[in-house]
Amino acid sequence: MSKTAYLDNNATTPLRGPVLTKMMPFLKDSYGNPSALYNLGKTAKLAITSSRIKVAALIGAEENQIIFTSGGSEANSTIIKGYCLSKKKKQGHIIVSSIEHPAVLRACDYLKSEHAYEVTLLPINSSGVVSVYDLKNSLQENTVMVSIMMINNELGSLQPIKEIGEVCEEKGIHFHCDAVQAIGKLPVEVKELKLDSLSLSAHKFGGPKGIGALFIADKNSVFPLIHGGGQEFDFRSGTENVAGIVGLGEAASLVHKKEAEITQHFYRLRYEFLKNLNSLDSWTVNGNLDLSYPSTLNLAFNHIRGEALAMMLNLHGISISIGSACSSSSPKQSHVLTSLGLEDQTIKSSVRFSFGYQTSIEEIQYAAKTCIKVVNQLRSLSTQKI
Amino acid sequence: MSKTAYLDNNATTPLRGPVLTKMMPFLKDSYGNPSALYNLGKTAKLAITSSRIKVAALIGAEENQIIFTSGGSEANSTIIKGYCLSKKKKQGHIIVSSIEHPAVLRACDYLKSEHAYEVTLLPINSSGVVSVYDLKNSLQENTVMVSIMMINNELGSLQPIKEIGEVCEEKGIHFHCDAVQAIGKLPVEVKELKLDSLSLSAHKFGGPKGIGALFIADKNSVFPLIHGGGQEFDFRSGTENVAGIVGLGEAASLVHKKEAEITQHFYRLRYEFLKNLNSLDSWTVNGNLDLSYPSTLNLAFNHIRGEALAMMLNLHGISISIGSACSSSSPKQSHVLTSLGLEDQTIKSSVRFSFGYQTSIEEIQYAAKTCIKVVNQLRSLSTQKI
Repeated sequence: MSKTAYLDNNATTPLRGPVLTKMMPFLKDSYGNPSALYNLGKTAKLAITSSRIKVAALIGAEENQIIFTSGGSEANSTIIKGYCLSKKKKQGHIIVSSIEHPAVLRACDYLKSEHAYEVTLLPINSSGVVSVYDLKNSLQENTVMVSIMMINNELGSLQPIKEIGEVCEEKGIHFHCDAVQAIGKLPVEVKELKLDSLSLSAHKFGGPKGIGALFIADKNSVFPLIHGGGQEFDFRSGTENVAGIVGLGEAASLVHKKEAEITQHFYRLRYEFLKNLNSLDSWTVNGNLDLSYPSTLNLAFNHIRGEALAMMLNLHGISISIGSACSSSSPKQSHVLTSLGLEDQTIKSSVRFSFGYQTSIEEIQYAAKTCIKVVNQLRSLSTQKI
Repeated sequence: MSKTAYLDNNATTPLRGPVLTKMMPFLKDSYGNPSALYNLGKTAKLAITSSRIKVAALIGAEENQIIFTSGGSEANSTIIKGYCLSKKKKQGHIIVSSIEHPAVLRACDYLKSEHAYEVTLLPINSSGVVSVYDLKNSLQENTVMVSIMMINNELGSLQPIKEIGEVCEEKGIHFHCDAVQAIGKLPVEVKELKLDSLSLSAHKFGGPKGIGALFIADKNSVFPLIHGGGQEFDFRSGTENVAGIVGLGEAASLVHKKEAEITQHFYRLRYEFLKNLNSLDSWTVNGNLDLSYPSTLNLAFNHIRGEALAMMLNLHGISISIGSACSSSSPKQSHVLTSLGLEDQTIKSSVRFSFGYQTSIEEIQYAAKTCIKVVNQLRSLSTQKI
């Protein structure tokens, strides 16, 4: 049986072997600057174009609509600030969900505090899903943008992107989707979903850290975030991270048209995990399994603290988190679980398990078995409720 | 004798072997998200801290003054927009040299067009150097920032950073230095130079592409460019490019306190190149060798076009550029050579040779010899002046 289990794949995933293999030449001999006109430069340029085609194919976009960025956060900041500020509306208005990633929420905070933007945070229901009805009711004359994530990073809850896309299209409002947790898991067709822009990040689906992409249907009249030499169709400057881009392209290729199979794998893992946990008492699922993508399980174990469970599991070689990676080193409570309307006690008892392409049934069995043992230990130690 | 020569090291340098070696574990087994609390995460976090110490040591900064970015352009956009816009001065004023990198110039364009900033472009003299006298005369009541590069990327000309630092300190004006071409070549002490901020890029001195750093003495009241999970002291969000950061740290270590030796190497290469070119007629040095760092040679070969020379040399395995990499795929004429006051004809006849840590005397000899041959061929082909 496995002696370790990495179950924090929503935070990051291991780099896939074939991805690293494709990257290696660009970390060694093919080091040219893609803007250069000699052979070394052309080789790098060609590799970037090839990756761009792969990423575009993955989401049904045109090549020239893909902008490589340093990751999902840069993609989010680029489009939210770049689009909203280019509109120059005083008292412009943006609608996002209350469970967006901080990369979206804090870009909105910036618009609000520095540019007098109005920001509407759509609530979620007890399944962790925003309502299209609420969205429609929140629209204003001055609404400039709607940004809703595809899959929530803490709950796995799926958002009604297609329906939101229709509303936005009808009203002529820019619709951005943070698809960082969805790419590599769900088939995504930007046209079908009527997306004006989408953010993705390589390291969430077997690619390298430090690279991502922004799909943007129409770059015109969006301010770039990073100015300079005019790379990326003059929209995102800076010498290209060639190896990273090549890695992203390969990671995209490896999941393209494999989403159904990958999803099936996650359903199996989730089923196995829940089945194995069955003998344990007093735990609940945060959110709604039926409305969530199966690679995430957010569970509350009564009478213990999530942090304690995560720490103890770490001693057994099991990596999980108590919320999003981005907030795990801060003492703040998860804004997602708070939005879900959970009681403080339940939030404090919660942990997140998230599976990856490489997660095996053996890891799941080891993790569930160890989890039962550790939860029982912690409960026997606690003489009082937390 | 060498059959190839890579002489475009100002555009990018090959990744040093020991740098790649240090990066590899973070592209393989040590894939944890540095924000995570389990062992895999802590390993990554520790590696980042270690790199931060190395980069800080390289420039005499404190650890918490180093912010990792995706490269030099991001560092430049972050500080120029983040500092100037946080000042919120209508009609604020920024002073830069006319030969700054586009990452600086175009961030200034943005401030000007979108925020009504005034921008002063300091001229350069025939040696490619700005004058402190001009700087002093350009200061205004509303001057918020001065940004001057340390070594120019096209000419190699050294700018009077220490003197400018003194002027800015006296006036209480933020002084930023784009040191992308200087780090790894010159010893830099931010305190001694009285810098408030400095940009650097790993791939210019043997590190990987897609990673750089911003030194910033005081982050308070500077707006972040990329919002999100609060990484990098809450100043630059996004999951850290761990392998890239480790690579930057190692590249920094390898050059730290070796700058004198490295510079000596470049002087030898430059001397060898010029000595070998001696038998060729009708060429001139753009700028002034005595006031330039020795790794860059910008030469004008009368009666031929720079592009033709670069193309022909590429056929002989020699990589050079006709200006900065960033503008080489655009037909625009170099703004640096234009600022130098050269005639159009001279600019069109110019190419840049730039040497790297790995450049050998044999490469230099092969390049110079081939250059003579190709220039003579091109001249014999041209029946008329260009």
